[in-house]
Amino acid sequence: MTRRVAVIGGGSSGLASIKTCLDEGLQPVCFESSDDIGGLWKFKVRLGLSLTREVHSESEGFECVFLGLLLQENPEADRASIYQSVIINTSKEVMCFSDFPIPAHYPNYMHNSLIVDYFRMFADRFQLTRHIRFNTKVLQVKQRSDFSRSGQWDVETENKDGEKEKHIFDAVMICIGHHCHPNLPLHDFPGIDSFTGKFFHSRDYKTADEWRHKKAVVIGIGNSGGDIAVELSRVTKQVGEESRDRCNVSNASAVQSLDSEPGRELRVAIGYGIQPAGGLSEEMFSQHPTVNDELPNRILSGTVQVKPNIRRFQGSSVEFDDGSVVEDVDLVVFATGYRFSFPFLASHVVSVSENKASLYKYVFPPELDRPTLAIIGLVQPLGAIMPISEMQARWATRVFKGCIKLPSAASMLEDVQCKQETMAKRYVSSQRHTIQVDYISYMDEIAELVGVRPSLPRLLLTDPRLGLNLMFGPCTPYQYRLRGPGKWAGARQAIFTQWERVARPMQTRPCHDPKPERSLKWLLVVAAAAVGLAGYVNRNGLPALLQDPTALLDKIKVYLPAQ
Amino acid sequence: MTRRVAVIGGGSSGLASIKTCLDEGLQPVCFESSDDIGGLWKFKVRLGLSLTREVHSESEGFECVFLGLLLQENPEADRASIYQSVIINTSKEVMCFSDFPIPAHYPNYMHNSLIVDYFRMFADRFQLTRHIRFNTKVLQVKQRSDFSRSGQWDVETENKDGEKEKHIFDAVMICIGHHCHPNLPLHDFPGIDSFTGKFFHSRDYKTADEWRHKKAVVIGIGNSGGDIAVELSRVTKQVGEESRDRCNVSNASAVQSLDSEPGRELRVAIGYGIQPAGGLSEEMFSQHPTVNDELPNRILSGTVQVKPNIRRFQGSSVEFDDGSVVEDVDLVVFATGYRFSFPFLASHVVSVSENKASLYKYVFPPELDRPTLAIIGLVQPLGAIMPISEMQARWATRVFKGCIKLPSAASMLEDVQCKQETMAKRYVSSQRHTIQVDYISYMDEIAELVGVRPSLPRLLLTDPRLGLNLMFGPCTPYQYRLRGPGKWAGARQAIFTQWERVARPMQTRPCHDPKPERSLKWLLVVAAAAVGLAGYVNRNGLPALLQDPTALLDKIKVYLPAQ
Repeated sequence: MTRRVAVIGGGSSGLASIKTCLDEGLQPVCFESSDDIGGLWKFKVRLGLSLTREVHSESEGFECVFLGLLLQENPEADRASIYQSVIINTSKEVMCFSDFPIPAHYPNYMHNSLIVDYFRMFADRFQLTRHIRFNTKVLQVKQRSDFSRSGQWDVETENKDGEKEKHIFDAVMICIGHHCHPNLPLHDFPGIDSFTGKFFHSRDYKTADEWRHKKAVVIGIGNSGGDIAVELSRVTKQVGEESRDRCNVSNASAVQSLDSEPGRELRVAIGYGIQPAGGLSEEMFSQHPTVNDELPNRILSGTVQVKPNIRRFQGSSVEFDDGSVVEDVDLVVFATGYRFSFPFLASHVVSVSENKASLYKYVFPPELDRPTLAIIGLVQPLGAIMPISEMQARWATRVFKGCIKLPSAASMLEDVQCKQETMAKRYVSSQRHTIQVDYISYMDEIAELVGVRPSLPRLLLTDPRLGLNLMFGPCTPYQYRLRGPGKWAGARQAIFTQWERVARPMQTRPCHDPKPERSLKWLLVVAAAAVGLAGYVNRNGLPALLQDPTALLDKIKVYLPAQ
Repeated sequence: MTRRVAVIGGGSSGLASIKTCLDEGLQPVCFESSDDIGGLWKFKVRLGLSLTREVHSESEGFECVFLGLLLQENPEADRASIYQSVIINTSKEVMCFSDFPIPAHYPNYMHNSLIVDYFRMFADRFQLTRHIRFNTKVLQVKQRSDFSRSGQWDVETENKDGEKEKHIFDAVMICIGHHCHPNLPLHDFPGIDSFTGKFFHSRDYKTADEWRHKKAVVIGIGNSGGDIAVELSRVTKQVGEESRDRCNVSNASAVQSLDSEPGRELRVAIGYGIQPAGGLSEEMFSQHPTVNDELPNRILSGTVQVKPNIRRFQGSSVEFDDGSVVEDVDLVVFATGYRFSFPFLASHVVSVSENKASLYKYVFPPELDRPTLAIIGLVQPLGAIMPISEMQARWATRVFKGCIKLPSAASMLEDVQCKQETMAKRYVSSQRHTIQVDYISYMDEIAELVGVRPSLPRLLLTDPRLGLNLMFGPCTPYQYRLRGPGKWAGARQAIFTQWERVARPMQTRPCHDPKPERSLKWLLVVAAAAVGLAGYVNRNGLPALLQDPTALLDKIKVYLPAQ
């Protein structure tokens, strides 16, 4: 009996789901609303008629007019969309699908165009595209009347010519991610209606080009907010260009220290004047980290200024909570994150409130009669999302097939409740933390359920070289292909060769063997370990460490390179 | 008796020299070839009729033409010139003139426009501009016939209307820096004549704008080369845009690992695939360091590739020493440094060969009958140049006045010889290392001669708070104004308030008192000290450390923040 599975979305989670369905002998049909794979990562360039005109005047009395026709992406509604310069912040060995390493010569941190190239290679290798129906939107996903017996779903779709179609599926995998619906909390910003500049959500930011010599304010300092502030600060008005008396508020890009909830103080800890409210140690682990190597320099050079929350807008001015005012603002970018929702699904199937969905291990709605609906990739990992989606898909398909049984609804609900309480304790209350997971512990948790978690003690005895590699090496996804369903013969070799693939793209010139001095290397390792330990102790207290030293080892495992 | 001093150049060294002359009761006349102060740091925007046209085609079949009229600086011959985005790599407390702290609200690392603002404030405060003759070029500086008795000089100048004038001066201070004459070793690059793209020296690079979607090669990886490569890599062709098969040499900006002498291997150590020839520890201290926080990320993301030396050019192709070829190169930037020379001076006065000048402590030609010629600012410091120029000027003016006597020509020549041998041992032979000095030891050396070096043991007894600040704080220039000629009443207070001025520009929002956790802070200090120690031991061996622990303390002094 072939079971038909609807896969909604052709991004990274969708591709992993199609592949896993095929691996498990299921028959996937993927509905992708755009004309290509890649989802979030597919940067779409469309001709935008944005004519920029910029007048630059100098003391010498001439004026230069700068005219430009700009390329712009026009993001479709309800689709994730990125800016042109996005480079992923997880490395290629950690973000890849577990049985398809990223080519050795690819850079370790890939530009979005390369990520899509990799997805394309993945799709070609496993012939996934033939299962995708492009330009097809899912309108409705509904339990059939005999759902409690059959577990089947009615799925209604619409193609770009407006033709609707009805399908019946044995299971549904929702792979739309959590970056579709911009969170634009305008009601929290008094006077925004009167604002004479332009404002938009970070999703609609594409390039900095048209903001040259303009003045910009970025609201929110997550990963997008940081990136956009840095990028804008290179072209926006430089401090000092406007006033020579140096008494004014300087006029570089300002990043507002607002997280997604106005009224709360910034808690992102990156030092350099961005101080979390309660001191470094207490707060720096209670937020999803913002990864940005350039922001500190931009702050040190005054080209980005960090400001408190916005009190109000008035004409072209922005007034902050400390009473300071930045005038003549041309652009406000709301890097205020995303909300997730499932508009094609009845609200009783997956209830979402305050960006919280009640999902067993972030995948299964616990109260359905039959476990034939899975949400794939609805996590915000400290780590890469692709291998997590893939692992969830491996679990979900095994559950669909009945090879794995889910616990009772009551115990699933209890698990959900327990997870939510843990998160509430660890993170400040915020929309973005409702789906926060730690890469290693979550992967191990699901891998255990699928039966593919590697046994470290056993490996140390039977295959010590591999065991030591897993123990002291980075936690790359290949290790979840060593045994069990979906076992891949190349996994062991992929683990042994992972450092070669890291080194290769940097070997762009002949070089002597890189042999750092032993003393230096040793010191760096000790220093890194000490800083990690200090962080852990600060957060959990010494007693916690003494009670559970393995938890610490788990944490160190991702970051520590193999020796 | 008022002595007239010619100051050649109105940049940072020239301004410091004018001020010092006035302090010492001398009468300065400064000749500045441009129409403004600031020298190197004055970015000049002139209307350039550079029309860029860029065609961007996408698979979807449309073409977008991007037209731009670009602002461009047209650098005058024989003048230093910077690119628009230059931000200084020394902090404001370390780079300022010793009796004129940079305003508290200025950023710690200043954009070039702010540096010029600071110079302007300095000139206004001490009324320096009235002593400057703008648009006046120095054609010749010649010993008068009675030089051995009078020490006087004939100086011939020309204004912008071509009118020549002759002057007599009692002393001359040459303040033209060492960034006037680009080093463009074209003869070392076979086939450069056939190159179909554009090429120029880094001095002529202003902005990345016109190289959007083009392909660029940067030769040299000093500070300019690194900056320009990073900046270009954001707009030049992205890896992957050209070929989808991923087999080609990727086509981001390539930095050639060439230092100023072709044929020699790169020795700059910043890790990330840029390995020095002889391993980290041996080589990383034998080059002037390249300071660039963004380059490692650009290499990791593959948007900058490091290549070996260039073998030859052919049409639009660049072939490297390892046989790899980058094709369709649009731009080659020669970041190959500068030569210094004194075209207005007879070669027997200051002889320059292989970028080496025989100068006593980098200031006085040792073989002149009378010490009335000083070269100010001809150093490449590990630290900031402005306070060094100022200190040299304080010394020179005291020598001019006869308050300080120079040793005999023979012992000066011996000192020069000895310095050159030390440098030859420490640094790889290169044009840029001939004038390399360590900030603290050089400042202390000249300050001792001037009689303004602070006595640490004495201060610890008489003013322990100040003494401890000097001992454990950063070596800011104010400490050379505590005593002796040129003593400044505000120096002590300036030292006590230096950390406030560091913190101020980052206090752009109300924040809780920044109190890092003690354990974290302690660990960071220990880690930094350990890394420094490892570097020192690696370089000098343990015995050297045991023999001379103070040398190490001296080195740490600049970098370690006050506790």
